[in-house]
Amino acid sequence: MTTQELVDQIWKKKSFLCIGLDVDLNKVPSYLLETEDPIFEFNKKIIDATHHLAVAYKPNTAFYEAYGLKGWKSLEKTIQYLNTNHPEIFTIADAKRGDIGNTSAMYAKAFFEDLAFDSVTVAPYMGKDSIEPFLSFKGKHTIMLALTSNQGAFDFQTKTIGGIELYKKVLETSKEWQNSKNLMYVVGATKAEFIGEIRKIVPNSFLLVPGVGAQGGNLQDVCKYGINDQIGLLINSSRGIIYASKESDFDVVAAEKAKELQQQMEEILKAQS
Amino acid sequence: MTTQELVDQIWKKKSFLCIGLDVDLNKVPSYLLETEDPIFEFNKKIIDATHHLAVAYKPNTAFYEAYGLKGWKSLEKTIQYLNTNHPEIFTIADAKRGDIGNTSAMYAKAFFEDLAFDSVTVAPYMGKDSIEPFLSFKGKHTIMLALTSNQGAFDFQTKTIGGIELYKKVLETSKEWQNSKNLMYVVGATKAEFIGEIRKIVPNSFLLVPGVGAQGGNLQDVCKYGINDQIGLLINSSRGIIYASKESDFDVVAAEKAKELQQQMEEILKAQS
Repeated sequence: MTTQELVDQIWKKKSFLCIGLDVDLNKVPSYLLETEDPIFEFNKKIIDATHHLAVAYKPNTAFYEAYGLKGWKSLEKTIQYLNTNHPEIFTIADAKRGDIGNTSAMYAKAFFEDLAFDSVTVAPYMGKDSIEPFLSFKGKHTIMLALTSNQGAFDFQTKTIGGIELYKKVLETSKEWQNSKNLMYVVGATKAEFIGEIRKIVPNSFLLVPGVGAQGGNLQDVCKYGINDQIGLLINSSRGIIYASKESDFDVVAAEKAKELQQQMEEILKAQS
Repeated sequence: MTTQELVDQIWKKKSFLCIGLDVDLNKVPSYLLETEDPIFEFNKKIIDATHHLAVAYKPNTAFYEAYGLKGWKSLEKTIQYLNTNHPEIFTIADAKRGDIGNTSAMYAKAFFEDLAFDSVTVAPYMGKDSIEPFLSFKGKHTIMLALTSNQGAFDFQTKTIGGIELYKKVLETSKEWQNSKNLMYVVGATKAEFIGEIRKIVPNSFLLVPGVGAQGGNLQDVCKYGINDQIGLLINSSRGIIYASKESDFDVVAAEKAKELQQQMEEILKAQS
């Protein structure tokens, strides 16, 4: 999917919401556990109820790998369901991968070819040759961690390196990599005040912003600092939407929560147009 | 597995060799492609031929994920084969994972419980709360990237942060984390001269050292700077062993290559005892 197609979808749906599909079987309604594939059934119900309100879905691979082979099968069925029924939706494998070049190329094959995701998240610690194999895929997007939403972000990311913070160094450096136009960045909503600084370095890139909702980030603050001419933001909510109810009405309540966020986004988009 | 059990195995086998099981179907003998599970069959033959020469095996998850559900199944069969037939061998899931706390806990469950690996590699960028969920597993080891073997290591890892290089900051900081005794570190053999510096910071920790062989690292140099009272080194070779022959004798030739390294290690161990 091209960036322009993502932007078009944002304006059409009046939403820049991404829904995190992080299924924990301890948190789903018990009746689902009796189905053959409870993770996929949960995702299917969430997608059916919210696809008109969201422009992206983001399964975090950890929640699938934790269930082994069955979990990987659920992930495969989920991305196939999305690609078949909602090909306009931007799909993100939240995998935070990264390895030496020939190995990163295998991860890129896994997520871009085998599973056919539009994008994958990656970690920057191993540098240029760990990321460029992902960037070489046409029509695919690589979303690199810059400043994450957790407390541990202050351990290394905000430490000063050569006069600037590490996360800024990561942003600056990555702009020089081959096919860097295919980069997006992860920036936590819990650090909204940093987003203005980030926008100075990558004015045109899309930012994937986790941490709105359960982790305490604020949508208005993120947009104030982060929005650009193409909107340039995907706001992710996982637990705040998918576990808003743990009863059999979870999909209905998830849609209500997604609608609340979409309506706030519609207001913000109105002010932009 | 306890660290002492690993050390005992090193002295018993006179080896601190780790073999990387990074199976690329473009590089295996063609007759294997006709079997039902060529990746597992390849691994089984390598393990059968080399298990007396190696103390550890390290499948890199990228090479399995690239083949989707079938690949994950091959990974599962490989670890089961090792745990059933060679329970004394130290197993490493080279996965380079790391995420916010509740998500890292799911990865820990995936590799320590579901797949029953002894250890997993992790990336430090997200800091303390992304790693501590792994460290809380008793009898399991978490191997964190410090200084990697690739060129991209110079992009961020060797940059100076608060007066010391980032990889040293990572080492220093991690020592303060809960259950840090369960930490080991990845240090590339291609940067052997750095290993002396690393030993000053983590004198007692095991180091997993990739990059001997195909990537150009030198065993003697690594040992000169890195060996400690418990040996404290696992030297990994992947391509240099498993693809030494691409014909049907690949397992025999792999054993020869492994034996060469083991004999060099035996000499080094003699000098230590």
